[in-house]
Order: sequence, then structure tokens, then C-alpha cells
Amino acid sequence: MEHSANKQSLVIIKVGGNIINNEEELHSFLKDFSAIKQKKILVHGGGRKATEIGRKLGIEPHYFEGRRITDKATIDLVTMVYGGLINKQVVARLQALNCNAIGLNGADANLIPADKRAVKEIDYGYVGDVREEEIAADALQLFLENKLTPVFAPLTHDGEGQILNTNADTIASSLACALSEIYKVRLIYCFEKRGVLREVEDEESVVKKIDRSIYDQMLANGSLTDGILPKLKTAFDALEKGVDKVIIGHAKDVLKNVGETVQGTVVSF
Amino acid sequence: MEHSANKQSLVIIKVGGNIINNEEELHSFLKDFSAIKQKKILVHGGGRKATEIGRKLGIEPHYFEGRRITDKATIDLVTMVYGGLINKQVVARLQALNCNAIGLNGADANLIPADKRAVKEIDYGYVGDVREEEIAADALQLFLENKLTPVFAPLTHDGEGQILNTNADTIASSLACALSEIYKVRLIYCFEKRGVLREVEDEESVVKKIDRSIYDQMLANGSLTDGILPKLKTAFDALEKGVDKVIIGHAKDVLKNVGETVQGTVVSF
Repeated sequence: MEHSANKQSLVIIKVGGNIINNEEELHSFLKDFSAIKQKKILVHGGGRKATEIGRKLGIEPHYFEGRRITDKATIDLVTMVYGGLINKQVVARLQALNCNAIGLNGADANLIPADKRAVKEIDYGYVGDVREEEIAADALQLFLENKLTPVFAPLTHDGEGQILNTNADTIASSLACALSEIYKVRLIYCFEKRGVLREVEDEESVVKKIDRSIYDQMLANGSLTDGILPKLKTAFDALEKGVDKVIIGHAKDVLKNVGETVQGTVVSF
Repeated sequence: MEHSANKQSLVIIKVGGNIINNEEELHSFLKDFSAIKQKKILVHGGGRKATEIGRKLGIEPHYFEGRRITDKATIDLVTMVYGGLINKQVVARLQALNCNAIGLNGADANLIPADKRAVKEIDYGYVGDVREEEIAADALQLFLENKLTPVFAPLTHDGEGQILNTNADTIASSLACALSEIYKVRLIYCFEKRGVLREVEDEESVVKKIDRSIYDQMLANGSLTDGILPKLKTAFDALEKGVDKVIIGHAKDVLKNVGETVQGTVVSF
């Protein structure tokens, strides 16, 4: 692996439904995102919109431990909503902001192959677990070197013709890990809070820096909520795989001055 | 313009809803398409599927002279169905056939800028007329040279953040014209008949070659139906703009031996 000091910077940003579904916040987010000068990738969610359109189509959402169960009707629904409606609207709006976006998912250019999750106690249906070592980093590099900005819908594919549903946080961290051999990657999770909070109810209690020992301590204290725990686990996993920095915070904070001062929570070893 | 003898071949194929919505025909079409050795681009329609899903969402289709009127609800619908469901499913299936497909529409990489059609007697709504001279041929060349196969949904954008609905035949011919400066382009319209028919009811009466004088004669005879007329107009227009050859015929015929023997109708000067 190249020494990171020689690598170009790449920022990978994950944004969730709380911003995607709020016109004002989305507008401000896209403006800030398009202003980022470094090479960049956007990964979006969109579960709420899918639920809303699904209801109209008579498709009720089912969850197990916070993960959507993806039956046949639901994979078609999220392929439409994530891969079509949200992805293409975000791309068109970034184009209007002079950001040369290209909307993608894991099937396009075979970017993110995945395995359909094996059925154990629960059949999650058409859910994909990313084959991280098979991510097409070379194709992404081709796009990035040609000044294109990939915008990912949280969909993968099984290589046998089936689209699969994959958590957007996981897509973002998988891309970050796969691209860390080429770029110095900063992975940013935009979140409804201003960062990891020492006191869940106190928005001012942002923990500026979390390392393993602080994490273990907060875990023991019970001060980490269900919303933040998977993100922190994913963050440490990404750092172990070569990602330079993981940042968790509110979109209105973490997209300003990317690469310089950092607001929100920085996760590092 | 370079002499066409020095140019590499590019095949651009348009396939409509009659094949997209028929599982057996789609499977056979995708197999034939993936077997084409030349550089290639696929443009798909999908109006029937959009109508079907629209009905479930309470969106009734409205047409004027065979063109869909695209209100706000309808542009969101076709963005989902063309740009998401159909496009991504076709891409995933081509991947399974070892064709490195990448799903695109006109907003992606600013590939096909368009103008929202001006309101005259009829307000077509969010319909885009392609700005042909602004098509990003360089980005398409980048993909093609890197062994990617673009798969287009019939959507464009206005450069101000709005996705627009554009006829798939028009997308195919616009791409063919824009890429004729770089490639020797063969434009193939897959169609429900075996070609242009001398007698509409007789599938065996395929006109093998149509030039301007035969066209004028058939026009005078009244032997050209509404289904074929716009395709022929578009075909002659494309030839004038440098496209090498336009072929109209049934998918099961025209994708075999592309570049060698030709079945269906060849349109030329």
C-alpha cells in the first residue's frame, strides 16, 4: 500500500432520509456538497420515501431489528425509489450546481457485487452483503479522475441478474475501504444529531474525538444509543481497513471546510 | 469530419416496451445484445410498465397525438420506472451475461441536456427536446473506450435541476448523431414488425432497403402507417447528420450477425 501522504484526498459522504425528505435541508446540503473541492462520492438513503410510495402501492414495510425485510415487491419498490426517483433527482440538482454527478448503484459497471444474505432465523429477502474485495475500485477511479462525482443509491447486485437492497451506511464504508488503497479517504456520516453526544438529550455535548478507549467507556456507561452504535462499529471497522478518518455529525456542520477544521465527532484509533 | 473508414464501429440499439414487458422476449433480446462484439449502447423505453404502475398510484396517462403528457406526478413516475426499475433491472441482467453495463440517463454526467418543450396549443409538461450539440460525446467515449456498455433510460434534464421525459427513439437517434463524429454508427430500431412492410398485414413483405425515392413513393401510396412514419423521418434525419446506417426490424432478426448480413429494413440515402 502506498503511503497515505502521497495519496490524493477523497471525501465519501453518506446522507440519510432525514435530509433527503426535507426540501430545505436537501437544498442546503446539495449546495454545500457541490462546493467541496476535493474528489467526492455521495451515498444516499431514502427509506422514508420508499415507505411512503410503497404504502400507496399497497406494500407495507416490515422490519427486523431496524433492518427492512425485502420481499419481491419491496426490492422492485426500492429499485424504483432509491435507484430512480431519489438518485436521478439528486443528480439533476447537482448538475444545476455545476457538480458533474453520475448516478450509480452496485450493478452499474459491476461496481458493488454482493451476496444475497443467507437465511438463518430470519429471511431478510433480497438483501445484499457486500463482497468488499470485489468492488470495482478501478472504474470508480476512472470516473473520479475524469471529474465525475459518483452518487450512489443503496443497491447492490448478486452477479446473477438480481438487484439487492444494502444499507447505505454499509455502502459508504465499503466504498471507503475499497478506495483507501488509492486515495486518502475521509468518510463522513451525516446524521440527525450534531455528532456523538455524551448526553443524548444535550445537543451541545458533542464528543469531539472518539478512540477505542472512549468508545469502550461509553459502551460500558450505556451512553451510546441504538442509532449511533452501528455507525461507530462501522467506523472502527473502516479505520482498521485503511480509511484515514471517519466523521459523524449534522450535515449543516460537517460539510463546511471539509479537509480543514472539523465539526462533529471524529472517530480515530 | 474523419473518413468513416477509419472509425471504429458503434451499434446503438433502441428497444421498446413490447420487448421490455415480455419476460421471454426480453431474455432472448438481452442474450443477443450481450453477444454483440462491437462497442454498443442500449436505449430502452418502458411506457407500458409506467402506465401499469401509475394506475396503481392513481396516475392516469394522458396522450396527445401519441405523446405522453408529463405532469409533475408523471415525471416522478417515469423517473422511478424508466430510470430506476427498468434501467437497473436491465443492467443487472446484462451483468449476469458478462456485459459490463452502466445504467444512465441524460442527467448523469450531463450526458443529454434538453430544453423543456415550449407551451403552444398543448402543454406537454416535463418533456425535453434534446440539445443535440450539447450531448457529452467525450464522456460516452470514455465509457466505451473502457469497455463499459451504456444503457439509457429515456430521460433528459434541463440543467436547472429538472428531469425531463424524452421519447426513446429520439434519444437513440440523438446519441447516434452526436457520436457519428467519433464512430461509424449503426442505429438499430427494434420494432414489433420484421421491418417496414409493403403490405401492413403481410409480415413477409419486408422492404429490404428504403431510400428517399422509395420513401416518397410509399408515402404517396399511403402504405406507411403512423407507427413507422416517425421512425423513418428520424432515420433520414440521422443519416443526414452522419449516421452510417439505420436498420428497422424485429429484435429476433436484427441483433443476429450485427455488422454482417442484415435482416429487417435498411434505411439509406
